[in-house]
Amino acid sequence: MRRKKGKAVTTDIESAVTDIKYRVKCQCAISMVELKLQMIQEELAEETGRKMISHICSRIKSAESIRRKLLKKGYDVDFETAKEKLNDMIGVRATCFFEDDIYEIVKRLSTHKDVTVIKEKDYIKKPKSNGYHSFHLIVEVPVYSDSGCEQKRVEIQFRTVAMDFWAQLDYQLCYKREMSGEQGEDIQKELHHYADEIAKIDKNMMRIRKEIETM
Amino acid sequence: MRRKKGKAVTTDIESAVTDIKYRVKCQCAISMVELKLQMIQEELAEETGRKMISHICSRIKSAESIRRKLLKKGYDVDFETAKEKLNDMIGVRATCFFEDDIYEIVKRLSTHKDVTVIKEKDYIKKPKSNGYHSFHLIVEVPVYSDSGCEQKRVEIQFRTVAMDFWAQLDYQLCYKREMSGEQGEDIQKELHHYADEIAKIDKNMMRIRKEIETM
Amino acid sequence: MRRKKGKAVTTDIESAVTDIKYRVKCQCAISMVELKLQMIQEELAEETGRKMISHICSRIKSAESIRRKLLKKGYDVDFETAKEKLNDMIGVRATCFFEDDIYEIVKRLSTHKDVTVIKEKDYIKKPKSNGYHSFHLIVEVPVYSDSGCEQKRVEIQFRTVAMDFWAQLDYQLCYKREMSGEQGEDIQKELHHYADEIAKIDKNMMRIRKEIETM
Amino acid sequence: MRRKKGKAVTTDIESAVTDIKYRVKCQCAISMVELKLQMIQEELAEETGRKMISHICSRIKSAESIRRKLLKKGYDVDFETAKEKLNDMIGVRATCFFEDDIYEIVKRLSTHKDVTVIKEKDYIKKPKSNGYHSFHLIVEVPVYSDSGCEQKRVEIQFRTVAMDFWAQLDYQLCYKREMSGEQGEDIQKELHHYADEIAKIDKNMMRIRKEIETM
Repeated sequence: MRRKKGKAVTTDIESAVTDIKYRVKCQCAISMVELKLQMIQEELAEETGRKMISHICSRIKSAESIRRKLLKKGYDVDFETAKEKLNDMIGVRATCFFEDDIYEIVKRLSTHKDVTVIKEKDYIKKPKSNGYHSFHLIVEVPVYSDSGCEQKRVEIQFRTVAMDFWAQLDYQLCYKREMSGEQGEDIQKELHHYADEIAKIDKNMMRIRKEIETM
Repeated sequence: MRRKKGKAVTTDIESAVTDIKYRVKCQCAISMVELKLQMIQEELAEETGRKMISHICSRIKSAESIRRKLLKKGYDVDFETAKEKLNDMIGVRATCFFEDDIYEIVKRLSTHKDVTVIKEKDYIKKPKSNGYHSFHLIVEVPVYSDSGCEQKRVEIQFRTVAMDFWAQLDYQLCYKREMSGEQGEDIQKELHHYADEIAKIDKNMMRIRKEIETM
Repeated sequence: MRRKKGKAVTTDIESAVTDIKYRVKCQCAISMVELKLQMIQEELAEETGRKMISHICSRIKSAESIRRKLLKKGYDVDFETAKEKLNDMIGVRATCFFEDDIYEIVKRLSTHKDVTVIKEKDYIKKPKSNGYHSFHLIVEVPVYSDSGCEQKRVEIQFRTVAMDFWAQLDYQLCYKREMSGEQGEDIQKELHHYADEIAKIDKNMMRIRKEIETM
Repeated sequence: MRRKKGKAVTTDIESAVTDIKYRVKCQCAISMVELKLQMIQEELAEETGRKMISHICSRIKSAESIRRKLLKKGYDVDFETAKEKLNDMIGVRATCFFEDDIYEIVKRLSTHKDVTVIKEKDYIKKPKSNGYHSFHLIVEVPVYSDSGCEQKRVEIQFRTVAMDFWAQLDYQLCYKREMSGEQGEDIQKELHHYADEIAKIDKNMMRIRKEIETM
């Protein structure tokens, strides 16, 4: 509303993100993805006799978070740049029981004709430097309105329950850790170590499951 | 499960309707329609400064209700016939404030490229014999899965808040009224009379709104 | 946060109302009342074979709305005064099918030992000057925490579906009507007239219901 | 409804558990506990600057599950016995981030004057023989209706996110494991081993958190 220089830009992101029409369209994209995952969950449950997805959640990226990410990446801080450059303006997270479940679900989702896969980032096979394990799938889904059809980009994060446990703690510890010099580095190393430990347990639990399945 | 003659068919409807994969697909169609209505609501709110839809609800037709309708219409009592012949297997109801709001929303919804209008039944201009006022729009919307794309038919009922009041009472009184001979007929006439009275008040309230708008 | 004179007070209401601990306690009170109404609904459904409550909704009064009401009533504009003087800081609305249902539900709710009735305002028997029909019950319910027990005041509004229709339209038309001089007065009179008409239809529908019940 | 011998009893549990009045009362107890946990969550967040509860879920025990448990424990299979003997007819589960969070939340909840602690079972300090870690708190909370006040027993399970991960996999693997003789025993041992491993990681993550807090 106020037209002071400098401030104007950030205000634009705030108002763009809280615009009810923007949010309803994002909600359409989220619902499409969530319902597709639920559909795949049911198909797989019928075939395998077990549930593969523990829970699904979603969020529309906040103005605050958009600003921080644009700055961190060295982009212009405005809404148009955000829509063009950031893949996670709309985010859905599916927490699965086992690692191989994730690949099966991704494979099926990719066959849906109204889903366009833009990019895959496999942080399970190549974990991030801090130890983070996850599979990110960037897709586009169509959202129709009386002004035509708009492709909406959605980042779908797939994690196992175990990875999710580590990531949640890491996130909680993240803020303080960053501000703490040498001691902070030690802690970071330790957290990384436990990420690896958890990943090992994860793989072993999967192995046990497979053993049981062949009984 | 049991394969007794006669019973078998009705069991089929029961199990088809409670099949989780059927329900998820119906839920996809419902979400699409509900989100579209919400999007239109927001567009119109921006243009007119007022809310047009009071509330939206939805349901998947129960086995019991499918059976009753197939029998009443003289069709075969099986799920395939139901899917082919009944337009309201999936139902969404939007309760609007004024009569002209209904026509505006229907007009906009019809322009969405992924919505195919199958049929319109205007019980506002031509009320049913019992006095029922409503606008029924039968549409088809696409639901994608890994087995391809399926068109799902949805009946969208548009009522004003006033019509909804009458219809709810009528529904509550319906069962007993039907079993009651001559006295029942008198009551039916009286209910019809009040449907007309409510429709008149509805139109007058709309006229008042228009007067206020031109001030 | 800012300590400018004049502004400070209104900021206090804003921050008090959005305080998450305040909201959780209000939510406790709302849940208690809603669940009690649902319990009574089920008891009565068993006895009478029909549903008496169409729907229930609730809200915590916004800072904006608190401020407006305190000003209108000539009170000091601060949160302590609001908590002391305003009965509707927490509001629940139950929309019922028939007028006599309202009195039955109020009677039963009043017997609950953890509900203290503070005041009854019967705008059904004595409608407000603008034509508004409703029954307001002010109660207190206990909310426990580790700092002990706090009595929370809740205004429960009971309306019939028909009264709700009128009140919703009246609310939509309210703003413009107020700013419009003589023509505004005419419209106000007309709206009042239709409130009375709707009340008459309401009573007649109730009479029909009773006739049917004695068949 | 049918009064065949033998069958009658199980039918009673089924109908008692699906009775809408029973379910609403259970729902009252669940809401009370959930809202108390949410209130404590907010108080602690204000004091510590971090969230302690990841998520809360709840369930009313199904007829099937009641029957199985009564049989397993050698009790009579009827609803009255179930209400008297089983503590988990109503269950709430709070999944927390760290072990010490659990003890803090239990301490605070126990001070609420309308909560009566019946029993504590600390499977964190003394894990179950299969490796299960959790803290079970059996409480009673009052539910009021127009027939007076009824104390409702609720089992509240507190787990860490890590324990929850293990327990969910264990539950998924449980059915097949039980039917599998010697190989089954090996797997059971292995699962137990990983429960211990996860508990160790859990304690280490807690230690890291405390180190960070003292920085």
